[in-house]
Amino acid sequence: ASNPHANGECSGEPVDEEFLFDPQLLFDLDWAGLKSRTPVTACGTMGDLRLRPLSSLDFDRGYMSLLRELTETGDVSRADFQRRFASMRACPATYFVLVAEDASQDNRPVATATLIREQKFIRDCCCRGHIEDVAVLESHRGRELGKLLVAGLLALARRLGIYKVSLDCHEAMVPFYEKFGLKKCNSFMIARFADR
Amino acid sequence: ASNPHANGECSGEPVDEEFLFDPQLLFDLDWAGLKSRTPVTACGTMGDLRLRPLSSLDFDRGYMSLLRELTETGDVSRADFQRRFASMRACPATYFVLVAEDASQDNRPVATATLIREQKFIRDCCCRGHIEDVAVLESHRGRELGKLLVAGLLALARRLGIYKVSLDCHEAMVPFYEKFGLKKCNSFMIARFADR
Ligand SMILES: CC(C)(COP(=O)(O)OP(=O)(O)OC[C@H]1O[C@@H](n2cnc3c(N)ncnc32)[C@H](O)[C@@H]1OP(=O)(O)O)[C@@H](O)C(=O)NCCC(=O)NCCS
Ligand SMILES: CC(C)(COP(=O)(O)OP(=O)(O)OC[C@H]1O[C@@H](n2cnc3c(N)ncnc32)[C@H](O)[C@@H]1OP(=O)(O)O)[C@@H](O)C(=O)NCCC(=O)NCCS
Repeated sequence: ASNPHANGECSGEPVDEEFLFDPQLLFDLDWAGLKSRTPVTACGTMGDLRLRPLSSLDFDRGYMSLLRELTETGDVSRADFQRRFASMRACPATYFVLVAEDASQDNRPVATATLIREQKFIRDCCCRGHIEDVAVLESHRGRELGKLLVAGLLALARRLGIYKVSLDCHEAMVPFYEKFGLKKCNSFMIARFADR
Repeated sequence: ASNPHANGECSGEPVDEEFLFDPQLLFDLDWAGLKSRTPVTACGTMGDLRLRPLSSLDFDRGYMSLLRELTETGDVSRADFQRRFASMRACPATYFVLVAEDASQDNRPVATATLIREQKFIRDCCCRGHIEDVAVLESHRGRELGKLLVAGLLALARRLGIYKVSLDCHEAMVPFYEKFGLKKCNSFMIARFADR
């Protein structure tokens, strides 16, 4: 009880570095096989850029401003970030947020993409993957980082035993995702709650 | 260590009844307000039918044969079911599998639908909902059970503070989901792994 964090309260103070999922899962992927224009080593590094799971320290490295390339982020404090990070991590093998950091810019996250592993009962208790929230910092676009992250998440999904991966996107992005063998299929529908 | 279940192994023996999520969440919803042709009481009952969370005992009540109305289920044993149930339950506030049981048929599950709560960092650390695996037993179709389950999951999503709910479906089902205010939007894309 002398540990101020033992009660699960979140002060928003800097914490020890933790990863959202086991980095070993990434080292084991065949990155070189993705045949990117920017060569990637077996551990997912390419020059100053390194692929890794989201870290508990990424709030201070500018993770929220990276997400702002994608959509509104609102006003997320360090404590909000840490709470969300902890509650994602509390769901075993569910959230796989991948980050490319730039070592030449204080390990700033410059690209991100998320895989969610959804457990089902159908098809022999299969798992389905959802790709969400793909974003590359404007300054780092056109270097195939987007491509590497999506291809990396698909390889990770395979490794996790997921049988199919889906995503929704604007029609304009369809050619981007077709590069990875994704195919348009089904209708996608949304209900938005007006008061949120 | 004298408890055979303490090591987390799953024997596939019948277990004490557990629900996948807190049933109280359903009692609090405004079921009557859904204005179904089959009147529903405040606690989600209508004649012999009762709405409740998925139960750890539903394997023996025929839950897998209900899912067979939707797609292939493969060969799921009681132990497989219990393992999957436990690993969904280990993800706090993530899996909301709703079931309608028929009291006149040994509480057999006759309809089901799933809401998944996905945690995000964008939009003030919002949550998004995904509706999956909606199925009604052929013998029970046309009594607005499908409608009640989907409307119920949308009401539950609102209660959980979710800002938007999405699903994908065959084009033929679009009119069914439009009844709930869902709108077609974006493109939906899938990658299937050929070897699974
Ligand atoms: C979309 C995005 C992630 C692409 O990142 P990127 O690192 O610049 O992309 P890459 O360098 O990996 O591009 C790989 C290929 O996709 C193509 N591409 C990139 N953006 C594209 C787009 N909007 N539409 C179609 N193709 C696109 C590139 O031309 C390139 O093609 P090539 O291999 O034939 O030359 C980035 O532009 C971004 O963050 N945009 C804002 C957020 C967003 O829209 N996210 C996607 C939400 S679904
Ligand atoms: C689709 C399904 C869930 C509907 O269940 P149900 O309980 O029979 O549906 P309801 O009685 O609640 O129907 C409500 C309304 O939707 C309509 N509807 C039902 N199935 C429909 C379909 N396939 N296409 C369009 N409308 C449909 C009904 O006509 C009814 O309309 P009304 O209120 O104007 O009379 C059920 O047919 C089923 O399990 N099908 C097999 C699995 C499946 O396809 N699941 C959906 C995957 S996206």
